[in-house]
Amino acid sequence: MNKYSLPYNSMDAMWELIERLFPINRTLVNDGYLESLEIIREKIDLNILKYDSGMEVWDWIIPNAWNVREAYIKDSSGNILVDFDNNNLHLAAYSIRFSGKLTKSELLKHIWTLPGQPDAIPYRTLYYKTDDWKFCIAHNDLRLFNDSEAYDVCIDIDSKPGKLCIGEYYLPGKTEKEILITSYLCHPSLANDNLSGVAVAVEIMKNLAAIDNRRYSYRLLVVPESIGAITYLATHEDQLHKIVGGYVLTCCGDDGIVTYKKTYSGNSIIDKAAVHVLKNKYQDSSFNEYDFWPNGSDEQKYNAPGVRLDVGSFMRTPYSEFAEYHTSKDNLSFISKEKLFDTLDSILRTLYVIDNDEILNNNYKGEPFLSKHGIYQSTDLKKPDKQSICYIQRVLMMELDGLNSLLDIADKWNYSFDDVYDVSREFLKSGLVRIVESK
Amino acid sequence: MNKYSLPYNSMDAMWELIERLFPINRTLVNDGYLESLEIIREKIDLNILKYDSGMEVWDWIIPNAWNVREAYIKDSSGNILVDFDNNNLHLAAYSIRFSGKLTKSELLKHIWTLPGQPDAIPYRTLYYKTDDWKFCIAHNDLRLFNDSEAYDVCIDIDSKPGKLCIGEYYLPGKTEKEILITSYLCHPSLANDNLSGVAVAVEIMKNLAAIDNRRYSYRLLVVPESIGAITYLATHEDQLHKIVGGYVLTCCGDDGIVTYKKTYSGNSIIDKAAVHVLKNKYQDSSFNEYDFWPNGSDEQKYNAPGVRLDVGSFMRTPYSEFAEYHTSKDNLSFISKEKLFDTLDSILRTLYVIDNDEILNNNYKGEPFLSKHGIYQSTDLKKPDKQSICYIQRVLMMELDGLNSLLDIADKWNYSFDDVYDVSREFLKSGLVRIVESK
Amino acid sequence: MNKYSLPYNSMDAMWELIERLFPINRTLVNDGYLESLEIIREKIDLNILKYDSGMEVWDWIIPNAWNVREAYIKDSSGNILVDFDNNNLHLAAYSIRFSGKLTKSELLKHIWTLPGQPDAIPYRTLYYKTDDWKFCIAHNDLRLFNDSEAYDVCIDIDSKPGKLCIGEYYLPGKTEKEILITSYLCHPSLANDNLSGVAVAVEIMKNLAAIDNRRYSYRLLVVPESIGAITYLATHEDQLHKIVGGYVLTCCGDDGIVTYKKTYSGNSIIDKAAVHVLKNKYQDSSFNEYDFWPNGSDEQKYNAPGVRLDVGSFMRTPYSEFAEYHTSKDNLSFISKEKLFDTLDSILRTLYVIDNDEILNNNYKGEPFLSKHGIYQSTDLKKPDKQSICYIQRVLMMELDGLNSLLDIADKWNYSFDDVYDVSREFLKSGLVRIVESK
Repeated sequence: MNKYSLPYNSMDAMWELIERLFPINRTLVNDGYLESLEIIREKIDLNILKYDSGMEVWDWIIPNAWNVREAYIKDSSGNILVDFDNNNLHLAAYSIRFSGKLTKSELLKHIWTLPGQPDAIPYRTLYYKTDDWKFCIAHNDLRLFNDSEAYDVCIDIDSKPGKLCIGEYYLPGKTEKEILITSYLCHPSLANDNLSGVAVAVEIMKNLAAIDNRRYSYRLLVVPESIGAITYLATHEDQLHKIVGGYVLTCCGDDGIVTYKKTYSGNSIIDKAAVHVLKNKYQDSSFNEYDFWPNGSDEQKYNAPGVRLDVGSFMRTPYSEFAEYHTSKDNLSFISKEKLFDTLDSILRTLYVIDNDEILNNNYKGEPFLSKHGIYQSTDLKKPDKQSICYIQRVLMMELDGLNSLLDIADKWNYSFDDVYDVSREFLKSGLVRIVESK
Repeated sequence: MNKYSLPYNSMDAMWELIERLFPINRTLVNDGYLESLEIIREKIDLNILKYDSGMEVWDWIIPNAWNVREAYIKDSSGNILVDFDNNNLHLAAYSIRFSGKLTKSELLKHIWTLPGQPDAIPYRTLYYKTDDWKFCIAHNDLRLFNDSEAYDVCIDIDSKPGKLCIGEYYLPGKTEKEILITSYLCHPSLANDNLSGVAVAVEIMKNLAAIDNRRYSYRLLVVPESIGAITYLATHEDQLHKIVGGYVLTCCGDDGIVTYKKTYSGNSIIDKAAVHVLKNKYQDSSFNEYDFWPNGSDEQKYNAPGVRLDVGSFMRTPYSEFAEYHTSKDNLSFISKEKLFDTLDSILRTLYVIDNDEILNNNYKGEPFLSKHGIYQSTDLKKPDKQSICYIQRVLMMELDGLNSLLDIADKWNYSFDDVYDVSREFLKSGLVRIVESK
Repeated sequence: MNKYSLPYNSMDAMWELIERLFPINRTLVNDGYLESLEIIREKIDLNILKYDSGMEVWDWIIPNAWNVREAYIKDSSGNILVDFDNNNLHLAAYSIRFSGKLTKSELLKHIWTLPGQPDAIPYRTLYYKTDDWKFCIAHNDLRLFNDSEAYDVCIDIDSKPGKLCIGEYYLPGKTEKEILITSYLCHPSLANDNLSGVAVAVEIMKNLAAIDNRRYSYRLLVVPESIGAITYLATHEDQLHKIVGGYVLTCCGDDGIVTYKKTYSGNSIIDKAAVHVLKNKYQDSSFNEYDFWPNGSDEQKYNAPGVRLDVGSFMRTPYSEFAEYHTSKDNLSFISKEKLFDTLDSILRTLYVIDNDEILNNNYKGEPFLSKHGIYQSTDLKKPDKQSICYIQRVLMMELDGLNSLLDIADKWNYSFDDVYDVSREFLKSGLVRIVESK
């Protein structure tokens, strides 16, 4: 992969995409989800895979489509107190159809609030339930209801077989081995979780498409969370051996430092490259490097037994650590262009390392006579500067033995991958070494 | 193995056995040893293996029986100054027959005392010597002797070929693979070293016998120290492959904290289970976890080259660290029922872990859809409680891959074995996983 | 190898050799180099291997011989300002022939000084250059030159095909497997770097020759640095499999503490023995133990890819850490007999360990009955002294299983090799164990 230079307009491109997608009501399977994919398709030539409701995918079943026509609560005077049209978080996803007149106490059994965050509307779902409905409102708005009143509830939804949709974009490289870049699109009006991940993922693919000489192939998957990942895996079992690993992107736009959640194995090239890049970019202390933990997003599915793909996850503040998570506060003002751009940059740097890491073997025995090959750099032997090209040459002369990859060598000797990679190009060009394996 | 509930009367049963055994004079091969085994047989149906004096067992030879009729020192007035009948520690085991009149200075060559513990009688032996005799007395009692006196010494012992006896009790399990529980019975009136070990070992077997569904078979061996272990090993070479490992029990009743001495390998299931249980029971700081050291009791023989069985050792204060060791101060007042019971409990908990540890493999691919299997537990995804069943389910979903045992998983994720085991039963009952291997 | 006793006269022998070699002008290939080998030959029966200039050795080419007849700078009055005859560091090795009259400013392009060490003459070379000449002078002596003067420069050298010479001394042992002891002899009048290394290397061989029962064969190589090592390796490829490893000796006489630079692998017997000896001799804190670093002397060539011989390096202060390195200050007053002797002692102790390390396997099963074999040592079982022979016997009884070498056991249990070795001789003599492998 040629060295990328991150176009500054990626920043605006990501923001514009998020702004357009934000208002749409999305869930696992519905019209809003497909509409959102079509908008992304304007940016990048997505292939849309479709799977029928009711289809068995491993241990799971694809649910029906769930679309909302209207949903509101009115008082007896006809005032609308809660209206889905105002905020699509008001109705828990996959609530059943309902209409009727309820007392306050009957109604409260169907209302979720967040007493600890009284002005925030919670985001909740009723996935895989078939007998309940719930409104989600700000705790402060409970004041609107009084005991002597009766309320008209209307939930006019449409639940019937539909199509689970997966947006896929495939960038071929020199080898069929591929790196997965994935995020999920099933949340309604929430910004950091998850539109930020989708926007960065799309922008990664646009940038990769513009770079020549990719070794690996890259595949973007935009899925409904969990069921979408399971569906893709279950319907592509014979293709999974091509996947080297990848990254789930989520919560990429908040103000926190970058977090890398490792794969289950914890020691794959996927992990080593990410940690290497973050250490070099942020100088150790200003990023989080966490071992795999067993709840979270689709990385659970990719790393699970029987699959065990090395898929890590890039985020900024982890989902469980910011108060705005899964509330109406996770909106456009919670994220920023600059942080989206910084996350994008970290991931592209990581992919650059993975794509260029390789194992070189020596065509020489002992020490090559560098000046004969036109690549000798003189040095002060007394106090050699460890950052000098000469010293890196000496490191490479010792290490390029067909066993250690360039990233291994950089990590062992505390160099940046770029430093080691650049000097190794001289060795390769001069014929002193040959590529043994592209890791 | 079903969960055991430790019967409180085990406490009295151990104490009663120790009280009955305490006064008897035992050594490697003698009548007192056999009499002691017969008393144990009242508690548990011991099989008594017998081996002739003179028999070669690997590099060793089984010694003669050695029985004492009487042994005393009288002054010239006929006053008995030292009498074996008062304390069987007074005569060093395997002293030869002797009778004669000696001056004080001649006599002193045959007297052992402990100047640093002047009121304690030392316990000493003359194993495998054939030409000496020794009295062991309190250093303070040297005052009884004066220079101008002549003393009558009488050592009337009987040394002739006899039978080395091993008390064996075998509890069959679902597999022939067995766990060894062993202690030694060759010391005369000493309480912590070694009657406490014998009493706990017997009580372990009684408790195991009362529990259903043991996976492993269990074998109790009550032997004369060293020569007894060697004899058993040398005469059962073709059976040793069945032994998974085991524990030597010694010094189980003093007031100190529990000590676990690891096997030579240091990383067997025998070690991992013991350390896991002690960490969970005593919360890290209040027990000792020691690497194997090369002197001690029969664990030396079991771990030795050419045998290399994974046999660790449970004790409280190690033998080399309490002043009462091998003296008349190691008597019934040095030990307590409560500490015997606590040691018993620790070992039974350990055996429970070993017996129930197993490797499970997933019948699912990716993540199972738990609610379909009736075992879904909801959780607050935002701040998941790591001790919740839901979180343990998520850990197990990731880890049950046919490679990691339940104990490995518990140790990796910092759970107690019981927590992991209990949740794994749900997975097993629902058919989501299958047993691959019983470690 | 029998225990060596270091003859005190080694101290004077090394010093005398260094004094004789010091004045001679040596370089990669020249008469002074050969003359120096002939002087060493008076001490030890060197075989001199000769290789023609122009010969290809792997990636390198053996250079021409370079001999200096005279080289000086005169002022216009005929005063000699710089004279090779006064100090052979004045002319950079492999300077080309030149004669002419130059202004100060023209001359300065051909003069090297050390502004930071104004009274020291630098040592520099023009290896593998063919178009330049340089004088090296003390920075203070720049005062001798003034702008209005013209200077006569005369460099009368002889550069023509010659013979690269390697001094080799081979001491056969019981096995053909060999340990390499090597230093380089291509520097002119410099004492610590490198005559100290040569002197210690020669004395090692003299001492080894005087010791009976060497298991390994030992080979001394005295080479011109880099090109000499490459030449030997390239011309003995089919012999290299016999080399177990070895040591490069350099900077052995200065006042600093001993430094051991590990092999590339870092965990060979070569490393373990050296570190073991230095830890036991200097008690941990007063020596340096460094991982391999990628610049330095011939250890680079031996450890290089395609060769990967385990060759470490003994030195005192590393070359890059003393100011006198590669200057006229690295002279006889910079080194001392006592430090040379101390370095010699450390290396001989290390070789003793390597030569005597072996793997023993038990002929017994379980624990041997030591008193039967006449090697029983009684001990206080209560507070066993870990340094007692008895305790070491118990360690060996547990460890001699055909897997662990004596050095492994000594390191694991914190004994000196000698302690373990001596007790193991009793076991071997009694037939309890047999030699399995000489590492």
